[in-house]
Amino acid sequence: MYVQSSIEAVPGFKVAGVHCGIKKNGQLDFALLVSDVPCSAAGVFTTNQVKAAPVLVDMEHLQLAKGSIRAVAINSGCANAATGAMGMHNARQTARYIAHQLGCEEAEVLVMSTGVIGQQLPMDKIKHGVDLALAQLGDDWESMARAIMTTDTRPKIARQVMTHMDGRQHQVAGIAKGAGMIAPNMATMLSLIVTDAAIPPQDAHTMLRRAADDSFNRIVIDGDMSTNDTVLLLANGLSGVTANQYMPLFGLNGVAHRLAREVVKDGEGVSKFVTIYVKGAENNAAAHQIANTIATSPLVKTAFFGSDPNWGRILAAAGRAGVPFDLDLVNLWIAPGQDYVETAPEDRVEPIFRPELDMHEALLLAAGGAPTLYAEADAAAVMQHGAISIVLEVGRGEGQAVIWTCDLSHEYVRINADYRS
Amino acid sequence: MYVQSSIEAVPGFKVAGVHCGIKKNGQLDFALLVSDVPCSAAGVFTTNQVKAAPVLVDMEHLQLAKGSIRAVAINSGCANAATGAMGMHNARQTARYIAHQLGCEEAEVLVMSTGVIGQQLPMDKIKHGVDLALAQLGDDWESMARAIMTTDTRPKIARQVMTHMDGRQHQVAGIAKGAGMIAPNMATMLSLIVTDAAIPPQDAHTMLRRAADDSFNRIVIDGDMSTNDTVLLLANGLSGVTANQYMPLFGLNGVAHRLAREVVKDGEGVSKFVTIYVKGAENNAAAHQIANTIATSPLVKTAFFGSDPNWGRILAAAGRAGVPFDLDLVNLWIAPGQDYVETAPEDRVEPIFRPELDMHEALLLAAGGAPTLYAEADAAAVMQHGAISIVLEVGRGEGQAVIWTCDLSHEYVRINADYRS
Repeated sequence: MYVQSSIEAVPGFKVAGVHCGIKKNGQLDFALLVSDVPCSAAGVFTTNQVKAAPVLVDMEHLQLAKGSIRAVAINSGCANAATGAMGMHNARQTARYIAHQLGCEEAEVLVMSTGVIGQQLPMDKIKHGVDLALAQLGDDWESMARAIMTTDTRPKIARQVMTHMDGRQHQVAGIAKGAGMIAPNMATMLSLIVTDAAIPPQDAHTMLRRAADDSFNRIVIDGDMSTNDTVLLLANGLSGVTANQYMPLFGLNGVAHRLAREVVKDGEGVSKFVTIYVKGAENNAAAHQIANTIATSPLVKTAFFGSDPNWGRILAAAGRAGVPFDLDLVNLWIAPGQDYVETAPEDRVEPIFRPELDMHEALLLAAGGAPTLYAEADAAAVMQHGAISIVLEVGRGEGQAVIWTCDLSHEYVRINADYRS
Repeated sequence: MYVQSSIEAVPGFKVAGVHCGIKKNGQLDFALLVSDVPCSAAGVFTTNQVKAAPVLVDMEHLQLAKGSIRAVAINSGCANAATGAMGMHNARQTARYIAHQLGCEEAEVLVMSTGVIGQQLPMDKIKHGVDLALAQLGDDWESMARAIMTTDTRPKIARQVMTHMDGRQHQVAGIAKGAGMIAPNMATMLSLIVTDAAIPPQDAHTMLRRAADDSFNRIVIDGDMSTNDTVLLLANGLSGVTANQYMPLFGLNGVAHRLAREVVKDGEGVSKFVTIYVKGAENNAAAHQIANTIATSPLVKTAFFGSDPNWGRILAAAGRAGVPFDLDLVNLWIAPGQDYVETAPEDRVEPIFRPELDMHEALLLAAGGAPTLYAEADAAAVMQHGAISIVLEVGRGEGQAVIWTCDLSHEYVRINADYRS
């Protein structure tokens, strides 16, 4: 079951990406998705204490109308975060204006924003964007994906089509804007996933949460969490195929995985795709905490950038993760990794860990917490790969976790220090 | 009471810094301090799960002989971390060899190491270093301070001399190696502070812990914690002045502060000294957690490097610190800071917070969680300073914290990606 990087059309959904004038360089900056029929919907949102106005509004709207969402509007160039009462008013106003045009309720429209924090939405431009987009609604998903970009270098699109034994087909399609977006003054990881399968509104959140936990919540660019992070799922049911929290929606994991990995690969200044696999921990949460600490360590990330098989930094980062372990039981391998998986991970109700690693190619650098007799040249050769896997065993427990991350490069510093938007 | 940047002599202590061959470039790499009389001593150590052999050995020795420490040996170029049983043997062997030469117990000698992780100590060179240093013992504190450097660009030395009303004098003197050392394969923040005042052995740890909490534990370079971090305090009592945990040792806070700030200023690739002051939190721990999250945020640090008054990033970092607060009560100021304090902070039993900030010069960027009408040019002008203070008020609580940190520059990435030792 292959994941595709383009979307022809998704039955019942129409989209558009336009330029309404928020971005000064004339690039697309407003996207709109409209569903022919009410959709069941769910969202997972940033856990940041500082939540942008559109995040707060969507949480409200999903409470009120999670079974009948009709449209999603996304603007780039302005995050509408840290904007107080005026920001809330503007986010609601956007939804209300679209609802008025579509003849539906305000709560049936969701909004997302990405861009500069601390600036108010230019409402005249937003309304202009709505008018333009409504006039251009169609199947141009690439323009839609481009309209939500900030410092991303390319649009991120994924689709899986599933043909069932009885001949019916359904698809899952999604777009994302990436960690290129945890950029200058930028706030946001945004993703919108739609399907023509049917999902009961009360199950949509559980299903999206599981898929996000095994994809978007496994990626780390720089450890900074935005005020706007949002992943939305809309299901219109037009294919006649149904799924629920006990019966997987085939394609959901694959699309979420692909989009999440694309976000890492297009991260700011990224030159290496790194998979960090921690096993042997007391439980999965402990393994995740260790993997995450390694993935956010500036010393580890700069070593990857320098192709330096500097395993002492990996151990030092693991040691400050706040999880006790016995150094005498610690083993560390490196191996060439995979930055691209053609086939999607299996769709299961409970996602499974897939380090995508052939341990036969792995090089043991440290055993029992002390260096092995590996050849420096062998380690250096592995580090030359564009994709690298780290396997860290911290004991004899059952806990394991995978995190996808990237290196920390000159380019990251340049983008985040020198740019002003 | 001024803090000096050089040490002439400290009664009863003799030091030396020599080259014994660990560093390939011929630079000083072995330091030895010997006390004429047994000292009461204390240490604070890294909380990393991965503790270097010298850290484990010192913890043991201080248990056994905290009232009668005679010598401290420090090597650079090799951290003796992640070195297993052989590493422990070598650390003990170093202490035993020095004890044999001095005619004291092995437990009366402390050892520190800094440098590459995962390599064994070259014991022939260490013994050579001991012999050379013993032959050169004297008052050359600068060589001592240089011998513990790794990627530091300059030695870090601080001294305070206190004349008492009755004419007696005592001094507190210290050296440190800095975060230039949380470098390539390098592990360590090391500091050694000595005094000719008398301190009861049972009080030394409490006093050092307090001083460290208000100095070394308030600095952040990159958030990575080393396997070797150690701060030692030795008191020989020769001045006749006494101090204890209820009666401050004048000069201890001043010397610890100066050394800690010098570590930040000489951090890898640092171009800006940043003071982060958080107030209004529920308690001091919550304030510290927020300040620390801001100080370790790559997006905040690159914004400082770019002189970008990007307050949205500061709020976004605060929001993911794991501490609940009400955005409507959040105020944020920036002001020119001070990277150098001539006079030492007051010595008190309980250290006090000193943001060293004139609020009259401060510019209010955000009030009630939303932007104020500040002029962009004014904010940009503040950010041009080499030292900058951030004041973040997160509510109406009593909790406050100060952290000293720095920016994240191209040079940091270059040093940590491109160097191999």
